[in-house]
Amino acid sequence: MTASNPGPSGTGTGPGPGRPRDPRTDDAILDAVRELLREQGYNRLSIEGVARRAGVSRPTVYRRWPTKAHLVHEAVYPAQDVHFTAPDDDSAESAAGRDFTDDIERFVEAALVSFQRPETASAVPGLLADYRDQPELREALNTRLDAVRAAFRDLVDAAVARGQARADLDADLLYDTLSAVVLYSTLSSSRRVGPGFARSVAELVVQGAGRPAAD
Amino acid sequence: MTASNPGPSGTGTGPGPGRPRDPRTDDAILDAVRELLREQGYNRLSIEGVARRAGVSRPTVYRRWPTKAHLVHEAVYPAQDVHFTAPDDDSAESAAGRDFTDDIERFVEAALVSFQRPETASAVPGLLADYRDQPELREALNTRLDAVRAAFRDLVDAAVARGQARADLDADLLYDTLSAVVLYSTLSSSRRVGPGFARSVAELVVQGAGRPAAD
Repeated sequence: MTASNPGPSGTGTGPGPGRPRDPRTDDAILDAVRELLREQGYNRLSIEGVARRAGVSRPTVYRRWPTKAHLVHEAVYPAQDVHFTAPDDDSAESAAGRDFTDDIERFVEAALVSFQRPETASAVPGLLADYRDQPELREALNTRLDAVRAAFRDLVDAAVARGQARADLDADLLYDTLSAVVLYSTLSSSRRVGPGFARSVAELVVQGAGRPAAD
Repeated sequence: MTASNPGPSGTGTGPGPGRPRDPRTDDAILDAVRELLREQGYNRLSIEGVARRAGVSRPTVYRRWPTKAHLVHEAVYPAQDVHFTAPDDDSAESAAGRDFTDDIERFVEAALVSFQRPETASAVPGLLADYRDQPELREALNTRLDAVRAAFRDLVDAAVARGQARADLDADLLYDTLSAVVLYSTLSSSRRVGPGFARSVAELVVQGAGRPAAD
């Protein structure tokens, strides 16, 4: 996704075949997608409109992203946006002070912030409809987010090591459950998502709905 | 949903002045909606097309359902479809044999079956997009499903009474969490939703992800 070519962008043609890509062109295109999602929504967004807004040609866009869904996915789910994990402090002291429920709360909060951006909220139903029509698309696009899932697994592993999570916990099922809750709350008009929502979800999934064994 | 039901949503104009509605007309219209959802999907479905397929006039449809979303919601989420609860056997013997995790599993299974119908799977992304544009719509439509939510609360209350669920459990949060998981798994291409999925979800939310207190 990087290139050192300082060549002009925004002048209409973009780099030709075999020439390194200009990251500023990528940024201009992704910015244009986010603007248009906020202004028009997913259904009315077109590659042509994105190219015009970004000041590039349609082929310049298609060379980078084969479909509108690929383009929108990258614009609204930046894969580098993995800020839910605690700072990389693995000292025993720091680890001892960590709490699994806090970790889960932080993950849910970060995901809520991400999904509540206007361009993301605008894109999600349209992307879901595209997934419906092209089942392979979701799998392909979600590989972009494998790093997020991997970071979540690390978080679970660390909690197991601290004795705070079940050793037999299915981290992927928990990840999907939390992702589902965040997606659902974003899609709903959701009076429920106020302060404390992430905490409530974290407590529910960590403590469980069943009667505590210690009772 | 009986013949004397005055209207699907309670918010429409209801039957024409002085003329009782024929439930067979309702059924024909709702059947036509489900057929067209399977054949064409949500976006291409029109009130005009539904009327034609059902052999009625457009005003006949509009008299009953003010928008396409109202019509589709009733066609794919039948409010009487609340089969997740155990038989109404409140004898002490029967109650003693009930298990909260089983109850949750049954709820998730029933919801999965409902969401995996082709017409429902076809309608959901379109409905979500409409909710996005008209936030009041989701609230209005979901009142149709209040009976399902109420039945779920009863299920939780019964589990609390049996000592199997936390007394402080937020039944609505659990309901929303499970609904989210089902919706999400239906929207995804979801290699995960095989046999045992409902059981895994039920165990996760009942036992919790945290280390058992008895450990």
